[in-house]
Amino acid sequence: MATLIAPLNHSPLEDAEAIRKAVKGWGTDEKALITILGHRNATQRQQIRDTYYELFQEDLIKRLESELSGDFERGMYRWMAEPSERYAILANVALRHADKNYDVVVEIACALSPEELFIVRRAYHIRYHHSLEEDVAANTCGPLRQLLVGLVSSYRYGGNEINGKLAQCEADILHEAIKDKNSSKDEEVIRILTTRSKIQLIATFNRYKDDHGIAITKKLSDEGSDDFHKAMDIAIRCIQDHKKYYEKVLRNAMKGAGTNEEALTRVIVTRAEKDLNEIKEIYYKRNSVHLEHSVAKETSGDYKKFLLTLLGKED
Amino acid sequence: MATLIAPLNHSPLEDAEAIRKAVKGWGTDEKALITILGHRNATQRQQIRDTYYELFQEDLIKRLESELSGDFERGMYRWMAEPSERYAILANVALRHADKNYDVVVEIACALSPEELFIVRRAYHIRYHHSLEEDVAANTCGPLRQLLVGLVSSYRYGGNEINGKLAQCEADILHEAIKDKNSSKDEEVIRILTTRSKIQLIATFNRYKDDHGIAITKKLSDEGSDDFHKAMDIAIRCIQDHKKYYEKVLRNAMKGAGTNEEALTRVIVTRAEKDLNEIKEIYYKRNSVHLEHSVAKETSGDYKKFLLTLLGKED
Repeated sequence: MATLIAPLNHSPLEDAEAIRKAVKGWGTDEKALITILGHRNATQRQQIRDTYYELFQEDLIKRLESELSGDFERGMYRWMAEPSERYAILANVALRHADKNYDVVVEIACALSPEELFIVRRAYHIRYHHSLEEDVAANTCGPLRQLLVGLVSSYRYGGNEINGKLAQCEADILHEAIKDKNSSKDEEVIRILTTRSKIQLIATFNRYKDDHGIAITKKLSDEGSDDFHKAMDIAIRCIQDHKKYYEKVLRNAMKGAGTNEEALTRVIVTRAEKDLNEIKEIYYKRNSVHLEHSVAKETSGDYKKFLLTLLGKED
Repeated sequence: MATLIAPLNHSPLEDAEAIRKAVKGWGTDEKALITILGHRNATQRQQIRDTYYELFQEDLIKRLESELSGDFERGMYRWMAEPSERYAILANVALRHADKNYDVVVEIACALSPEELFIVRRAYHIRYHHSLEEDVAANTCGPLRQLLVGLVSSYRYGGNEINGKLAQCEADILHEAIKDKNSSKDEEVIRILTTRSKIQLIATFNRYKDDHGIAITKKLSDEGSDDFHKAMDIAIRCIQDHKKYYEKVLRNAMKGAGTNEEALTRVIVTRAEKDLNEIKEIYYKRNSVHLEHSVAKETSGDYKKFLLTLLGKED
């Protein structure tokens, strides 16, 4: 369930005019922007963008960029992008980042549904005039490249059939590969993780746990893991239960001193219209504190107001 | 341009009734089937199937299978399948074949447009409850697997931009790899062939020819080539000019003693509604004999009549 609170009916015209008032002249009425845009779903936001352009011959996103700043600006920019374009932007930013953040690439490839992932690949073409796998391949090499390119290119079967014998056989292969981080098994690991259906993989991971008494990700998230095994870990977590994975991202983003605003924004903005409510529940169970409270403690100002609005806080 | 001659208007009802007459009782009127179905485009054939089912509560394709036999039956079966499903069938048959015919898999992955290939992957899910890449990976290993899985999973950028420097650099990489069939370069070859746009790859192949005075495929099609280099050869030919590639398939299918009916049927059935006219012209230029004449010489009976009809021969 979504946390976003959006009205069933809204007037794109009234919204566009109210936004114009909020950004016109000196100063910006950030509160008005949050009140409107923080309560509109993707279709409604697109209608507002279109109407705003018709009325004022100006791209609303560009205008917001010039009016806002810092984490609030980045958050609003992500929020206003059309969802598949937003994932394309997130993947591209991750690939261009100094300390290559492959987590985000793996997350997009494995947490989305096969059809959603394909639409993101199409959006990536349109925006960057390259294919996503092309840019992933150009930035990586060796088994890590094979794994990442395989994950972003995947179009997994979405049916419910499970082959128990296959799950057993492939759980054994994964165990052999992970046991000593045995690189001679990389090829088989990549084949399994990039081509099998999610349901089949979950059966394989369950088999692994039953047979070896330990979750498959336990050994992968060791301190000493290299990029390949880290990517494998994230892929498995996202396939197994993407909501639990997102809870972990939120938890890590607010752990200890400092906050990872990029991660915080990413999860809230991408999930607010989907399943952030369940992620909130998992967060509460795991941390005995409400997600809203953690976010309120870690953030401030308009950025804080914006995130809390997307989290479903009533004004 | 297509070779198929189909009327602008047809009556699915009249067609379905005429087909019923042709298949009812003892014996089958093959000539009537060819006259009708050999002159209907994909949409019209689908309408006939639907109408036939409504009228007679019977799947037309199944009925044709039980009425016809041999190469004619196989040809009609391919022809009646919806185009993306037909490619899914062709790929699956190739993968299940005793002497694995990876040519067909590479051909489908590289001769179709990126969007067409994606639709074939979706059709494969629906028909086989697996992903295409899953079945490809299960049947292969090593660099060949990487290349084939990469090709069938590709969703190449379709724009017209060419990066000349990149073409130069990657032509050099391909040359190094091909020169001594140097397997340490396999990874880079796979990256280039599976992720770059077709236009970019064609620029790379042209660069190769300009710099080395020989077509890139020359050395790959050597007698001694292994499966990996053979697949590479077909991928490059399909990307460079799929019509020239199909001409070669037709030529080889009818070369020397015996005929490869599977290949002959495949090319004629899959291209009759697309660009078989240009392929016919290339065939005539290359062989100084009309494709229709070669086909007429190599085939007989209803199968011959059917292929010639698809090739645009007037009744």
